[in-house]
Amino acid sequence: MHTCELISVGTELLLGDILNTNAQYLSREMASLGIGLLHQSTVGDNPGRLSSEIKSSLSRCDIIITTGGLGPTPDDITKETVCEALGFRLCRDSAILADIESYFTRRGKVMPAENAKQADIPEGAAVFKNSCGTAPGAALEKDGKCVIILPGPPREMKMMFNESVRPFLISKYSDGVIISRNVRTFGIGESDMAHRVSDLLKSVNPSVAPYAKDGEAFLRVTASAESCAKAEALLLPVIADIKSRLSDFIYGIDYESLQEAVVKLLSEKGLRAAFAESCTAGYISKRITEIPGSSSVFECGAVTYSNAMKTKMLNVSPKTLKRFGAVSEQTAVEMARGVMEISGADIGVSVTGVAGPGDDGEFPEGLSFIGICGAQGSFAERFETGRKNAREYNRYVTASKALDMLRRFIIKNY
Amino acid sequence: MHTCELISVGTELLLGDILNTNAQYLSREMASLGIGLLHQSTVGDNPGRLSSEIKSSLSRCDIIITTGGLGPTPDDITKETVCEALGFRLCRDSAILADIESYFTRRGKVMPAENAKQADIPEGAAVFKNSCGTAPGAALEKDGKCVIILPGPPREMKMMFNESVRPFLISKYSDGVIISRNVRTFGIGESDMAHRVSDLLKSVNPSVAPYAKDGEAFLRVTASAESCAKAEALLLPVIADIKSRLSDFIYGIDYESLQEAVVKLLSEKGLRAAFAESCTAGYISKRITEIPGSSSVFECGAVTYSNAMKTKMLNVSPKTLKRFGAVSEQTAVEMARGVMEISGADIGVSVTGVAGPGDDGEFPEGLSFIGICGAQGSFAERFETGRKNAREYNRYVTASKALDMLRRFIIKNY
Repeated sequence: MHTCELISVGTELLLGDILNTNAQYLSREMASLGIGLLHQSTVGDNPGRLSSEIKSSLSRCDIIITTGGLGPTPDDITKETVCEALGFRLCRDSAILADIESYFTRRGKVMPAENAKQADIPEGAAVFKNSCGTAPGAALEKDGKCVIILPGPPREMKMMFNESVRPFLISKYSDGVIISRNVRTFGIGESDMAHRVSDLLKSVNPSVAPYAKDGEAFLRVTASAESCAKAEALLLPVIADIKSRLSDFIYGIDYESLQEAVVKLLSEKGLRAAFAESCTAGYISKRITEIPGSSSVFECGAVTYSNAMKTKMLNVSPKTLKRFGAVSEQTAVEMARGVMEISGADIGVSVTGVAGPGDDGEFPEGLSFIGICGAQGSFAERFETGRKNAREYNRYVTASKALDMLRRFIIKNY
Repeated sequence: MHTCELISVGTELLLGDILNTNAQYLSREMASLGIGLLHQSTVGDNPGRLSSEIKSSLSRCDIIITTGGLGPTPDDITKETVCEALGFRLCRDSAILADIESYFTRRGKVMPAENAKQADIPEGAAVFKNSCGTAPGAALEKDGKCVIILPGPPREMKMMFNESVRPFLISKYSDGVIISRNVRTFGIGESDMAHRVSDLLKSVNPSVAPYAKDGEAFLRVTASAESCAKAEALLLPVIADIKSRLSDFIYGIDYESLQEAVVKLLSEKGLRAAFAESCTAGYISKRITEIPGSSSVFECGAVTYSNAMKTKMLNVSPKTLKRFGAVSEQTAVEMARGVMEISGADIGVSVTGVAGPGDDGEFPEGLSFIGICGAQGSFAERFETGRKNAREYNRYVTASKALDMLRRFIIKNY
């Protein structure tokens, strides 16, 4: 198995101005290519420190990928430092210079003189075009080692990786295949989930690893083999076993999110849903409509904080609000029914609760009632996130719970 | 100046399962404490590699902060590895054991036997309590060096850092003060902004650094001095100068977001706003209501994808929809007026557009019309993000543009 290390270059990363999403992206890609990623590091725009980082990494692995430091300004020093460390010479490439000039021309601008240095290419290196920026990338190969330099802006880096770097790595460095499946659950804690599959966690190939994020628990099942078909054959029985043990806690395999699962289910069944949100305040609508094509299953959303708006937009009875309060099972049911009836959707979903910070006197922070209404009838569930001082988390997990209730309602009734 | 390095521990980071937000958080904190952060690294749950990382870091800096690997399972090896590298012995601490047991008792559970090892404390180390989890942190000091071990889950790490680690570092390792101000703008590109303050970018103390994120451009102004008062005195004239040059592009200094600026403005003026969203689909409502206390300025939101719902919920005239289309200036104005009138809010804001993926035939992806309606009248602006295949980005930046238009409308009219 080939091994790889990542070096992110940029003082802005060391100051915390920027979140390093490139490292996560490239880590996932290396795993999918069956290249073992052993180490990530971040250094500032400092030739000495970058040079010593490159040398330590080269002593441990076959492939280094750097991101950042390919810009036009004097503090962009990655290309120069890598060339010096590996003994490559930089030469101006007239075709790439023309590309960079035309990048500016297309935008009605003249190329600033500083950008010319981005057309300096390590002699003998494979060059990767930048289709949405000016800095090209490159792969410098020497003595069985390879250093790949990529631009720092995530959009440019990802596009270059997809168009050029992945094919380059597959052709040269990917021996064997590693395939992962991500089993995603909602409604079961990480430790409870891990307990139900505790014997599988000891398995080596496929390996099974639990992790948790944002109120959800996942199992990553990873198999390595000579071919995709063989890796898939290893995965199949383990996935089937996990499915039987975690049953309906699983909302999807390799799905990105609960909203993806819900939109797929609604599409399959030809249903349309509508959402009435108080404490989550548009979060469910926002998440559902993240999914391309959701317009065919999303009827509408209503964000109603005040009692007056619950009555005006959703026909919630003032009596119900007075007798049971805005945060109640009864109000949740009437909100779900109201948004369903007003919109003509097949199913109405509602949330009313206390996002925080601070309890509202009667109710603890993180408490909500979630209502569902369909042709089959209506109901509401009490839900507690159990967290204080966690407005964003409470809103996110409450929206997730509503999406999961909708998912289960569809599976049960349609 | 003391120097620091971060080591993030966890195979899940090397596999890309998790985004390393801890590194950004701690980097910012070190900068604010005037401790020079020189290097970040990530290693897997591997004692050999972690140990050699600790040794290289110790040879370069005064303080190491590790995150992760303090859990109850056998693959959590940070504490044991750090103790071995520094020559500390682990001893079971009965008070901490009681804390961990009561953590489970409070949740109606019995502590699993594996969790007992989290009560093993490096002898002679300063111990940091974990007020929202089970793994305590610690600071191991030896030969003028300090290794601080913190749990991996961001919520636990951040709370522990705030409650215990920051005071510890201030009392022992923070000499002098570094203060940063973050000037946040909307509507001006990073290069245009940098051009207007190009002479200031050369200044050393305070330093002025531009950066861009999610369609916004920022200037970080950083001063170092012996005391807060002296650092503030250095910042004052530079900030004033920047304000005069960037004027109304600036929506706030040290604000976290445009929605924070908008909620503060609405509160100050005693105004309430309501939102009608098509392509952004709840994103504006979600962002406004991220801000605690927004309920006093947020009247309601309506998410209306279809023409039918635009008419039913917002009284948009079917004639307007037919004549000008859903994505038009006229529809945007009627949506804004509709949501204002229905809700009784002081100002109505609307968005209608094409989030993507793909053009809708007539209009390019990323195009929208944003409407504003108040007692003073109504108008709509055409807005283009200029990006393809960027649904999430287009929705975010379009929501930002709507928030910025609302901000400017309030400043101009109230």
